[in-house]
Amino acid sequence: MGEAILSDLATEIIVPACAVVGIVFAFVQWILVSGVKLSPEKDSPANRNKNGFTDSLIEEEEGLSDHSVVTKCADIQSAIAEGATSFLFTEYQYVGIFMVAFAILIFLFLGSVESFSTSSQPCTYDKTLICKPALATAAFSTVSFLLGAITSVVSGFLGMKIATYANARTTLEARKGVGKAFIIAFRSGAVMGFLLAANGLLVLYIAINLFKLYYGDDWGGLFESITGYGLGGSSMALFGRVGGGIYTKAADVGADLVGKVERNIPEDDPRNPAVIADNVGDNVGDIAGMGSDLFGSYAESSCAALIVASISSFGVNHDLTAMMYPLLVSSVGILVCLLTTLFATDFFEIKAVKEIEPALKRQLIISTALMTVGIALVTWLSLPSSFTIFNFGTQKVVKNWQLFLCVAVGLWAGLIIGFVTEYYTSNAYSPVQDVADSCRTGAATNVIFGLALGYKSVIIPIFAIAVSIYVSFTCAAMYGIAVAALGMLSTIATGLAIDAYGPISDNAGGIAEMAGMSHRIRERTDALDAAGNTTAAIGKGFAIGSAALVSLALFGAFVSRASISTVDVLSPKVFIGLIVGAMLPYWFSAMTMKSVGSAALKMVEEVRRQFNTIPGLMEGLAKPDYATCVKISTDASIKEMIPPGALVMLTPLIVGIFFGVETLSGVLAGSLVSGVQIAISASNTGGAWDNAKKYIEAGASEHARARPERFGPTQGSCDW
Amino acid sequence: MGEAILSDLATEIIVPACAVVGIVFAFVQWILVSGVKLSPEKDSPANRNKNGFTDSLIEEEEGLSDHSVVTKCADIQSAIAEGATSFLFTEYQYVGIFMVAFAILIFLFLGSVESFSTSSQPCTYDKTLICKPALATAAFSTVSFLLGAITSVVSGFLGMKIATYANARTTLEARKGVGKAFIIAFRSGAVMGFLLAANGLLVLYIAINLFKLYYGDDWGGLFESITGYGLGGSSMALFGRVGGGIYTKAADVGADLVGKVERNIPEDDPRNPAVIADNVGDNVGDIAGMGSDLFGSYAESSCAALIVASISSFGVNHDLTAMMYPLLVSSVGILVCLLTTLFATDFFEIKAVKEIEPALKRQLIISTALMTVGIALVTWLSLPSSFTIFNFGTQKVVKNWQLFLCVAVGLWAGLIIGFVTEYYTSNAYSPVQDVADSCRTGAATNVIFGLALGYKSVIIPIFAIAVSIYVSFTCAAMYGIAVAALGMLSTIATGLAIDAYGPISDNAGGIAEMAGMSHRIRERTDALDAAGNTTAAIGKGFAIGSAALVSLALFGAFVSRASISTVDVLSPKVFIGLIVGAMLPYWFSAMTMKSVGSAALKMVEEVRRQFNTIPGLMEGLAKPDYATCVKISTDASIKEMIPPGALVMLTPLIVGIFFGVETLSGVLAGSLVSGVQIAISASNTGGAWDNAKKYIEAGASEHARARPERFGPTQGSCDW
Repeated sequence: MGEAILSDLATEIIVPACAVVGIVFAFVQWILVSGVKLSPEKDSPANRNKNGFTDSLIEEEEGLSDHSVVTKCADIQSAIAEGATSFLFTEYQYVGIFMVAFAILIFLFLGSVESFSTSSQPCTYDKTLICKPALATAAFSTVSFLLGAITSVVSGFLGMKIATYANARTTLEARKGVGKAFIIAFRSGAVMGFLLAANGLLVLYIAINLFKLYYGDDWGGLFESITGYGLGGSSMALFGRVGGGIYTKAADVGADLVGKVERNIPEDDPRNPAVIADNVGDNVGDIAGMGSDLFGSYAESSCAALIVASISSFGVNHDLTAMMYPLLVSSVGILVCLLTTLFATDFFEIKAVKEIEPALKRQLIISTALMTVGIALVTWLSLPSSFTIFNFGTQKVVKNWQLFLCVAVGLWAGLIIGFVTEYYTSNAYSPVQDVADSCRTGAATNVIFGLALGYKSVIIPIFAIAVSIYVSFTCAAMYGIAVAALGMLSTIATGLAIDAYGPISDNAGGIAEMAGMSHRIRERTDALDAAGNTTAAIGKGFAIGSAALVSLALFGAFVSRASISTVDVLSPKVFIGLIVGAMLPYWFSAMTMKSVGSAALKMVEEVRRQFNTIPGLMEGLAKPDYATCVKISTDASIKEMIPPGALVMLTPLIVGIFFGVETLSGVLAGSLVSGVQIAISASNTGGAWDNAKKYIEAGASEHARARPERFGPTQGSCDW
Repeated sequence: MGEAILSDLATEIIVPACAVVGIVFAFVQWILVSGVKLSPEKDSPANRNKNGFTDSLIEEEEGLSDHSVVTKCADIQSAIAEGATSFLFTEYQYVGIFMVAFAILIFLFLGSVESFSTSSQPCTYDKTLICKPALATAAFSTVSFLLGAITSVVSGFLGMKIATYANARTTLEARKGVGKAFIIAFRSGAVMGFLLAANGLLVLYIAINLFKLYYGDDWGGLFESITGYGLGGSSMALFGRVGGGIYTKAADVGADLVGKVERNIPEDDPRNPAVIADNVGDNVGDIAGMGSDLFGSYAESSCAALIVASISSFGVNHDLTAMMYPLLVSSVGILVCLLTTLFATDFFEIKAVKEIEPALKRQLIISTALMTVGIALVTWLSLPSSFTIFNFGTQKVVKNWQLFLCVAVGLWAGLIIGFVTEYYTSNAYSPVQDVADSCRTGAATNVIFGLALGYKSVIIPIFAIAVSIYVSFTCAAMYGIAVAALGMLSTIATGLAIDAYGPISDNAGGIAEMAGMSHRIRERTDALDAAGNTTAAIGKGFAIGSAALVSLALFGAFVSRASISTVDVLSPKVFIGLIVGAMLPYWFSAMTMKSVGSAALKMVEEVRRQFNTIPGLMEGLAKPDYATCVKISTDASIKEMIPPGALVMLTPLIVGIFFGVETLSGVLAGSLVSGVQIAISASNTGGAWDNAKKYIEAGASEHARARPERFGPTQGSCDW
């Protein structure tokens, strides 16, 4: 079998070191962002937490040194930050109650397996060995579940903080040029990306090492209890995504329907009562929500790989370095992303608007290319040349280059998904332009073309995912799938950076508009934002692709644990599971869409009411009541995230209890294969509609009858 | 095992007798419809084929005896009939070439199995017996394939003929009252329903008996070659549905976008150049296309049941009556539907508009209730009390009451699907009303609510289908699934009657508008039409539900034939098949939607061109150029039906050849479970949008900002 080149001690140093490097890098970026000073004259709320030292702004090229503009920016920023913070606190309160209840349930269920006995017991996979009691696993699983949930919350919250800290600064930098603004927005995205990737890795690493103090050589029990970390992350992701998604889309649709369509005022006009809610939404939905989502996938795939490894030769032989392979891949990923980020912020400089999208695309290519080398290195250094992997009851012999192939195929599938998403959602290519053109004949043809585009955009990503599954499964069974997912997520820091960059630019544009800044500044932020819509869709593509692989890996773990050796489509129990499972994403989407629809209706009515009843609002003489709109979005999303969340959480329990594991296997497989299609098509349809709108607005004269369509954002929220 | 009560001779008499009764009944209905005379004064084209005897019209209650109106109706009718006939001839020409090529391929593939040897060979399922040569099976399969295709063409064509014969007559009868008009429209629908059900049964019966002259006791070979009948029917259905669907939706969207939305003229206004194409579309898409579709499912399910039975105890023991069980069920179905039809046309009388929908719903309930008794009777009379059914290589013992359960569960699942569809698409209930209300806030919320409604409407039908699958599979394996599908289709004559009633009423309304008849008449036909939109959605629900069951039965037949004993989701080959298969319906829908979108764009531009360039068109002084619009729809649908058709036809071949039967099994299962969801949701979203529009138009004042949305029809065309 051979030995790994890397010593166990080196592994124990490299992993936390890389995580710390990531965190330090994130803070360096944060400091660089804070170099842009808000409010030179007074101590604005957003600046209060720093040393209060004020610096005079560099005189802008346009000669705009109107200090009131800066003050306005600071005010708007603090309103957005306050709204976002207050929403997240409310959300976390509700979700916190649920998480504690769920944690207690986990403890009771797992503990009751051996009737809360504190004595050791024979191991699950090898009855000749003695393992730690089920009660211990219950306790440690509960702890790691809570750790996962807390890490997710912290990552999402910090991401929101930096985003609401950076938005006004991006606006101000836009006065100096598009390149400066781009760097601020991108650096802030990087803060979020690196914090999340490094925190996720560090907490996992620390948990493993602490748990090992108790478990000792019982690695089966150790890594079984570590899986709670993934569950905690993804449970949080579910609520973060759904709650944030409903919030942002209700506000977005509501604001635009009355403001842009009925009242014919610009997007983000300060007269629109829902404009603050809209900007808050970007931060809680597309920053905190997306962060939770990707963290969930990342934690799940790491845990899935670890649990399989623990019952493979790595775990059986107590080969620590090989066991830590998933963490080593993530560690190298942080270094690779660090280098990649420098390409965007330091090595090159953006001079014109049209360089933005290529620069972001270059990030994807560079990180993927470097990561391929990184994976090869990690694989060569940390794995024995040959080993065995657990495969549904048997041990499969695997070579180290096969594992390289698994991770690499996931990584490159991610790149392909990214490129396809870009092609279908960027207004530089014909699909979005066709959708924009179809507006000439009205909303109906626009809807038809948009939906058709989304459906079509599913084809290549599905083939990419199918190839990854085939290659990685053939090479290394379910472990292969898990590390393929990890490969796709190995460049998560860069992925999140370009993803978070979008909402920050969107907010920056909003602030420019609300602060009444020059048209030229708004043009610059709009250009940043258009690229951001595309990258947001790419981020969703990664999230969906990796979620598909992770779900399959977890499905494999479930099947292994439930001692099922085949899931036969020809058995009626499995087939009805399959068809009902394929229906579940529709049910879920129906719920979330209905929620967005109702919340948007309420928002529209409130905005109309304010326009009609507040005298002088349209003339800009009176201030609208932003808080009521924020409250509508908050209440709706808190209330409405429960039913879809319950559907996802309860289905496995109900099906498992009443119909058995066979049907449950069918349900899981069915919802996986059906959900990934809806998710990709809805996300791309949404992105395309959004950018078609931007495309039309940029050259409105050509499309006389074109109307901005606002179906886009809602569609995007139906990710399963 | 016991003997059946019914003798073989009785079976040989009952089946064709019922078929003939069905055909005679259809002709009686036709004669009753022809009692309404068009053009009392001159020999109109539509009347020319009859004896030319003219009768004076009864003086109408409104005192409208303007003969020019009648002449106008006759003219419009003949324009629609000519357009529909010419389109179908063009379509059949292209499809005919394809069918002949496909028939040759079938012959060559099947014949080449034993290198075109004419000597007998060992049987597939029992090597100790000698069966007819593969060449014979190739020849007979080809013949039955062509028979299936021709029967489909004839049924669809006759349906279109009676529909275009009845539309103007319905308009004229509407002058006497809504009840009279309803009866004419419903009788015409019944002509189509009974002709299709009876023809399908009769041709199948004759083919079996003729083939038996050659095959003798080799029932395995006999029924294997009969399966070509199903393939022929469903190949034709694919093109009929796609071609007709593109035609009708392109014309519909094109006509409404310019006429109703831009020019603000009523629906079906004669000034609209696309109005004839729109009315032709109803006949080629929703009549001929839907007819082909249901015939395809019917033929496939009969053939699937027969092929399984031929290798079960029925076939092995040469028990003709039991073997003919599927045909006996269909025979009784014709009698049951005949009785049911009398409830609508003779036993009750419609006196008010609000009685229409209950009357149609009663048809569903009565036919299902009677049919349950009919199935019990057939099961008791024609089956031995216990027998064995082939189940993936083994023989499963089945009791006759279990087979009753299989057919009945399919039948009742159909009723549930029908009711759920009605609930979600009729404007009498809250879902459609909510969609209509959402128009107050514009197109975007309307789209969100409509899509959410469609997604939600999937839930109960999928559970109904899942229960049917579970019950019928548990009772009688794949044979159970096939007869469950047959159960759902056993009341096909009534189903098609209420389905075809819709487009006929739609046309009748169009003719009333174009002939410039009184507003009261238009109101009556509109009421008929609104009910028709719902019943059309119900018809689609049946088509989708039965297609799902049939596909599963065929999947089972394929798996049995390919000697696969398990299709394991955990094998990578199957899983990638599953995920790629689940993607195929999206690909297919993307193609058809894009086709509809492009054709509608062309149509819109042509209609606009005519309004802009033909002087006096808006004032009603000049006649528009209807023919160009008809040509645009015809050309588009002929050209555009090829790629989706090729996707469906070639996928199994390509996957099977390059990736093997395992992956192919996955692809089939994946596209089945994913396709049924898209089909139900798209069909119901479409129906709901259509009726939300009608709901708004009926009480427009309440919904000040409401605009008729025309996405509906397109959605409906995405059936997989």
